[in-house]
Amino acid sequence: MKAAVLTIGTELLIGQVVDTNSSWLGQELNALGIEILEKRSISDSREMIMSSIDELADKVSFIFITGGLGPTKDDITKKTIADLLGIGMEFHQETFDKIEDYFKRRNIPMKEAHRLQCYMPIGAVMLANNMGTAPGMWLEYKDSIIVSMPGVPSEMKYIFNHDLKKKLQEDKAVSEIFHRTIHTAGTGETIIAETIADIESNLPKGISLAYLPGIAQVRVRVSGNSEDNEHAKKVVMDIAGQIEERISKFVFGYDGETLPMAIMKLLKERNEKVTLAESCTGGYVSNLMVSTPGISTVYDGAVTAYSYDLKEKLLGVKKKTLQEKGAVSEEVVTEMVLGGIKATGSDYCIAISGIAGPGGGTPDKPVGTVWVAYGNEKNIITKKLQLTKNREMNIKYSAAYALNAFRRLLVAQK
Amino acid sequence: MKAAVLTIGTELLIGQVVDTNSSWLGQELNALGIEILEKRSISDSREMIMSSIDELADKVSFIFITGGLGPTKDDITKKTIADLLGIGMEFHQETFDKIEDYFKRRNIPMKEAHRLQCYMPIGAVMLANNMGTAPGMWLEYKDSIIVSMPGVPSEMKYIFNHDLKKKLQEDKAVSEIFHRTIHTAGTGETIIAETIADIESNLPKGISLAYLPGIAQVRVRVSGNSEDNEHAKKVVMDIAGQIEERISKFVFGYDGETLPMAIMKLLKERNEKVTLAESCTGGYVSNLMVSTPGISTVYDGAVTAYSYDLKEKLLGVKKKTLQEKGAVSEEVVTEMVLGGIKATGSDYCIAISGIAGPGGGTPDKPVGTVWVAYGNEKNIITKKLQLTKNREMNIKYSAAYALNAFRRLLVAQK
Repeated sequence: MKAAVLTIGTELLIGQVVDTNSSWLGQELNALGIEILEKRSISDSREMIMSSIDELADKVSFIFITGGLGPTKDDITKKTIADLLGIGMEFHQETFDKIEDYFKRRNIPMKEAHRLQCYMPIGAVMLANNMGTAPGMWLEYKDSIIVSMPGVPSEMKYIFNHDLKKKLQEDKAVSEIFHRTIHTAGTGETIIAETIADIESNLPKGISLAYLPGIAQVRVRVSGNSEDNEHAKKVVMDIAGQIEERISKFVFGYDGETLPMAIMKLLKERNEKVTLAESCTGGYVSNLMVSTPGISTVYDGAVTAYSYDLKEKLLGVKKKTLQEKGAVSEEVVTEMVLGGIKATGSDYCIAISGIAGPGGGTPDKPVGTVWVAYGNEKNIITKKLQLTKNREMNIKYSAAYALNAFRRLLVAQK
Repeated sequence: MKAAVLTIGTELLIGQVVDTNSSWLGQELNALGIEILEKRSISDSREMIMSSIDELADKVSFIFITGGLGPTKDDITKKTIADLLGIGMEFHQETFDKIEDYFKRRNIPMKEAHRLQCYMPIGAVMLANNMGTAPGMWLEYKDSIIVSMPGVPSEMKYIFNHDLKKKLQEDKAVSEIFHRTIHTAGTGETIIAETIADIESNLPKGISLAYLPGIAQVRVRVSGNSEDNEHAKKVVMDIAGQIEERISKFVFGYDGETLPMAIMKLLKERNEKVTLAESCTGGYVSNLMVSTPGISTVYDGAVTAYSYDLKEKLLGVKKKTLQEKGAVSEEVVTEMVLGGIKATGSDYCIAISGIAGPGGGTPDKPVGTVWVAYGNEKNIITKKLQLTKNREMNIKYSAAYALNAFRRLLVAQK
């Protein structure tokens, strides 16, 4: 079964909103075995909505649409679909009752705009939305199914995870793709490609390989498509195993795994904890850690010491060291590690201090200079990175570098 | 001038990578006055690349393509474009010299794959890429321009900001769209729409209005399209001014402004500082603050106290309060504010402690219960939020709520 995702909203085209809906939908549909042929974003224009649905209906069996179902005037998706399909609209009492109840519980007065939201294309199957006021819709057009959902991510996800998933499974919209993704850090795409060149040249039919370079990380994805899903899975896992053997020292996880998860696993085994002393990354690494369910077993919290003053107050970095060496120095990150361990009682600490940019560089410490230190009271490893002029890139690279270097230290100690 | 953005890579379709390239490009092209008619993502498939470029070339004057220019075998964009255009490939010495130099400086050995990367479609204009090995390309097809760039964001951005922008400006690919976006927090889309219903009903020709709901925020965007750019700008600013008058108490900024920027402005005026004491948000709010250039004038750093233990150690929360009231309580967030101020010497502190989920809820404190406190030693305001079961949503909502509530406190004190 082939599908397309169509997201509607001028804000997506002018970059005011990053379209996370379509990547989330991509992940979920892929997990259900539905192949996505294409994703499109278009403006809230009646003409574009009509022509896009029309074009996509000739290419795919399912069109998943998000956006344009809200109560305001720029929300024209519902009416436009009804017009394209040549059907009228009718008042949907059940939806009205649900909205009324939703507002009562929240003690918000119900508006005329909400009543108007209850007119639905005749014959559309409603998909319940318990996170907001606009239900999803399931409609047939030509030989395809059109699914229309609100653009607010929490509402779209609710609809997908409940009524929609059930209907898709009933519809048996399921094909046979299986992926295995190997996560690596610490080397580049070209080196990996060269190391596994012979494997790549001799891939069995139906098996493909892709490199997904990220910041300080490269993912290698093996995919298999076969009529017999168990067979595809076996072949994919076998190839992935061969690849991993070649590049094992760079591999930190598979599929949905992240660097914090890999660290969590290693620390849990030894019943130890880590903390962070962040300067230029300003809470970014802590946020990565906390995004990991279960992290509280190995992570109690951390300190973000952005100024000289807080490096002294919270981490006990010596004024003399700061004055003589500057905040971005091997000596200061080393003291930050010791101070972080002392302040939190953790076994290990990772410290990062750098000039993330765009301003703040000097001739001997240009923008992109970052010092990283990690370890425990007995053994601290330091590393100077010379990165780019781009602030966001420098923060993300430093974070990935520091987490992976710390992971390798834990692996080496095994 | 109408344009389309085409991003290539199976990883974009299966949601393994969020397509930030197209939103960044959307923003930049929009700022140059180039209207984006549609965005598409497709897989690394020769057939899809050919048919998509062919379809788009009939609709728009510019096709901006990212992805598939790397050195590995799944990078087929360049060869596919050459085949579609019916042109051969030739070795490009200048590109080879640049790559050789790039590798020499980094002390990395040059590989055969890199030499093969130097074959380019005959007649393509090269766009310099100083962040990586694959240059961008500018080609003509039918009546359109095809621009092909690597998918790595830093490389794509470099090419865009240098050679490509210059060429676009020379080409005068400039139309006349002007946007003004009003950022609000603390109310919903429907309330705003109702408050400004008469303005929306009487918009002059060529002016449009859109609502962009976000987490705890709604943006209202006024857009104008006119032959005379100065005139469009004047009308848009006038309408935006009328709207703002009606909803002023919810407005915190315009266009690229964020809540941390609004807070920074207010604190700078009074020469005061703020810190954070984060529990369930785990560094997320600190990261928002630090993403704001210039924030160091009002922000020194913060504490992330995820465990009971660190709430005591770093913020001086009393063991007795934690035991009797629990970490998610009015009493604890109040002590966190006081402790944050004491530990950092800041004037104000914002504290957040909650059960973000998915686990950890109890009958009297279900998942989604979040306590927020903010203020200074003399005046602390507290608020209990009852949010959703979704971890990410709860963290983002709490952050936006807390920042906006603190901003309103500063505004009220004026």
